[in-house]
Amino acid sequence: MSKKIEKITPLAEDFSRWYLDVVKNGDLISYGKTRGTIVFKPLSFGIWENIQKNLDAEFKKLGVQNVYFPLLIPESLINKEKDHVNGFNPELATVTEVGGKPLSEKYYIRPTSEVLFNDFFKNEVESYNDLPLVYNQWANVMRWEKTTNPFLRTTEFLWQEGHTVHADAVEARKLTRTMLKTYAKFLKNYLAIPVIQGKKTPREKFSGACSTYTIEAMMKNGRALQAGTSHYLAQNFTKAFDITFKNAENKREFAYGTSWGVTTRLIGALIMAHGDDRGLIIPPKVAPVQIDILEIFGHKDPAVKNLAKQVKKDLSKFFRVKLDDSSKGPGFKAANSEIHGTPIRIEIGSNEAMNNSVTIVRRDTLEKVTVPFTKDLKSVIRKIFTDIHNNLYNAAYDRMLNNIVTCDNMEDFKQKIDEGKWVLMSFCGDEDAEAFIQETTGATARCIPFKDPIHIESTSCVLNGKKTKRNVIFAKAY
Amino acid sequence: MSKKIEKITPLAEDFSRWYLDVVKNGDLISYGKTRGTIVFKPLSFGIWENIQKNLDAEFKKLGVQNVYFPLLIPESLINKEKDHVNGFNPELATVTEVGGKPLSEKYYIRPTSEVLFNDFFKNEVESYNDLPLVYNQWANVMRWEKTTNPFLRTTEFLWQEGHTVHADAVEARKLTRTMLKTYAKFLKNYLAIPVIQGKKTPREKFSGACSTYTIEAMMKNGRALQAGTSHYLAQNFTKAFDITFKNAENKREFAYGTSWGVTTRLIGALIMAHGDDRGLIIPPKVAPVQIDILEIFGHKDPAVKNLAKQVKKDLSKFFRVKLDDSSKGPGFKAANSEIHGTPIRIEIGSNEAMNNSVTIVRRDTLEKVTVPFTKDLKSVIRKIFTDIHNNLYNAAYDRMLNNIVTCDNMEDFKQKIDEGKWVLMSFCGDEDAEAFIQETTGATARCIPFKDPIHIESTSCVLNGKKTKRNVIFAKAY
Repeated sequence: MSKKIEKITPLAEDFSRWYLDVVKNGDLISYGKTRGTIVFKPLSFGIWENIQKNLDAEFKKLGVQNVYFPLLIPESLINKEKDHVNGFNPELATVTEVGGKPLSEKYYIRPTSEVLFNDFFKNEVESYNDLPLVYNQWANVMRWEKTTNPFLRTTEFLWQEGHTVHADAVEARKLTRTMLKTYAKFLKNYLAIPVIQGKKTPREKFSGACSTYTIEAMMKNGRALQAGTSHYLAQNFTKAFDITFKNAENKREFAYGTSWGVTTRLIGALIMAHGDDRGLIIPPKVAPVQIDILEIFGHKDPAVKNLAKQVKKDLSKFFRVKLDDSSKGPGFKAANSEIHGTPIRIEIGSNEAMNNSVTIVRRDTLEKVTVPFTKDLKSVIRKIFTDIHNNLYNAAYDRMLNNIVTCDNMEDFKQKIDEGKWVLMSFCGDEDAEAFIQETTGATARCIPFKDPIHIESTSCVLNGKKTKRNVIFAKAY
Repeated sequence: MSKKIEKITPLAEDFSRWYLDVVKNGDLISYGKTRGTIVFKPLSFGIWENIQKNLDAEFKKLGVQNVYFPLLIPESLINKEKDHVNGFNPELATVTEVGGKPLSEKYYIRPTSEVLFNDFFKNEVESYNDLPLVYNQWANVMRWEKTTNPFLRTTEFLWQEGHTVHADAVEARKLTRTMLKTYAKFLKNYLAIPVIQGKKTPREKFSGACSTYTIEAMMKNGRALQAGTSHYLAQNFTKAFDITFKNAENKREFAYGTSWGVTTRLIGALIMAHGDDRGLIIPPKVAPVQIDILEIFGHKDPAVKNLAKQVKKDLSKFFRVKLDDSSKGPGFKAANSEIHGTPIRIEIGSNEAMNNSVTIVRRDTLEKVTVPFTKDLKSVIRKIFTDIHNNLYNAAYDRMLNNIVTCDNMEDFKQKIDEGKWVLMSFCGDEDAEAFIQETTGATARCIPFKDPIHIESTSCVLNGKKTKRNVIFAKAY
């Protein structure tokens, strides 16, 4: 690996190229040999580990239990829920032979595991006392997509998929919403990404779900990114898989299901919500390296080496720290820290060594401050981390709100969509109308927000004038 | 799920049936729909999570970096290292089509990822400054085995696989041994399982390795279980994949590789090293539930309910605790806690409520002790956990040493193998002789131990009298 800093296409010049440059030059991935796959290198996998660890802790507080189901789905099983299988059919990677010999039945690599969980639930559920079952798995899944993009759309990706069954619809619906809120809060508190929460239109909902709820995040180019979904499955799967239980009156009923998930595309969201022309900016809570300590000409000054070592030792007790004690120049070291998105770097040169101080540089604002190296340093850094997190969140929040607009008519709509805005408008909900909008403008219905993010007057569909109370956000999306 | 305790076949009567009963009645698994697969239910997956968390922490102390590689291996890539592919060929699940359409190249579900990592290393390594690369991934792999057994041998299993490349052979060899020691220490400190460390005979080594090191554990029926392996790959893969680097003299050299792994069969090891006729016994450090609090007739005595709730609240701050506040009888509750292997249960009945005390029952010895419910309870419990861990380890250690024997001749050998002993004997190392021993006795060469566990006099091969300094442990194995 050559150790020079590669140039990044400016974000404003070409967002897609900027993204790919950041992904590649930030050492996040390498392309896999199987079409549309990526190798998660230590930095991107480290982000995913921090996402997993913290989100899983939230799940456990809610009583979610982790399990692991097999990778392959037998052909006979996948056909049980028709809408579901139709939604995935063209994307299914299929195992047909073992050791060169054909199998008697085909197996599909899971695109999602609803059918496996529900087939299992059938034998676990006997009485209402057994319910609810609130399970989750962290796993790899595969969808052979035509167009792929690192993190955003890959033929294989990592995710968590929650699957639950309940004795009544109200409880299942409530859990669907609880998980969505958990995702929204997680993105805010850990990834510094604001989202709009809402319900998918019928055209955009998950194959096999009764309703799909979503959190939608805005990237720096204005595009929407579906960052997490939670599905109320009603009895669609429990009827297909014959999951019944005896209720308190000893009568058999079908159970009610949910499923919900977030994926490694969150890494893509994080890059496109915060990154800049210098590269990645990783929020401190999920940064695999939180502090880069840079020796400035340490090979020429033993006092620098000593202080750097001491600072590393001290801070490692509280933070994830990396020391760059190579003989490379300060410009290279700074750029190297910046491209990898480390929240702060600490520069230690002869001046700092003389004064027993450290110079802290924030990745988000590039502000520099020199402070004494005392026991208090950790509190100073904690405060800066909080500031960075809030600054990233607030900037993303303002950008989002500034880019959500209403529109008067379809011409106005198209223009705003082309400008990279999200358009909140009254919409009748007709599926053909929605398809027409997508074909003519490239925008899709992102969600029916729970709460309108901006004020809207109209009560009739912008497209065809039909009376409606439904306000929908449209946008171009990843 | 019916809530009665199922009967377990006594261990001494039929060990295989005992094992399957414990696995099933302990709610560890359900069988998957794909042949030879299992569903990891919350209890077994919880054990795996604790193994993963703690072992991963040990890896990180050693500077190991986690990554994630794609699931599928293209046909063109797998054929690059001949010994390797021959070792796995008959077991490879093969993807030949997507969405009903044939693919132009076949893809294999990874049985292990040496070829993927080494193909990647080729592009990452340029100079000796880039080395070593010490990577690990936690992943699912697939080997279509003919005979399967929950945890011990399943067509899909979970594992970690470490893959490294180094600038010199000495460093690579050293890392191979360091990882083996890390495994041995982990099994001792977390799973309370003693092991013999050693080297595999050429016949038993990993396909593609130069040397394979192993930790071998003894199960309660005397069978050996290979619990972890570490392979020194020398330049076998780096030559096949053309992984070269410029050394300090600016000359190109091939790098040196290692790989090492442990799998979900550790869960099987834990069951068969510690379990008894009442069911599982899970060592406290990896038990998903460390304490079962049982209300004894709590529905008839509010004071019992109150105390149980209070104890749960207090202990939850320090331990993984579950409260059984159902109206089931004390006999059921105790048996239910025992079958699931919870290290201790705390019984709270009217007596305890009256005296503000709790009765603690150890799962391993079934000893009961009643102690006051004070702030000191957590220290009492910590002490008991340490005792349980040490007791389990010492019992397993004594059993292991008592069951390793020497032999005078092949007749004696066969008899001892049939009695379920491990036989340490001088062995010439001839591969045909080793095959002959397996065919005639069912025993395989487990390892050439680093240190003989028992004293041995002979210096000539027991089978054919050839002079040799090599002592080998033979045993029947899983």
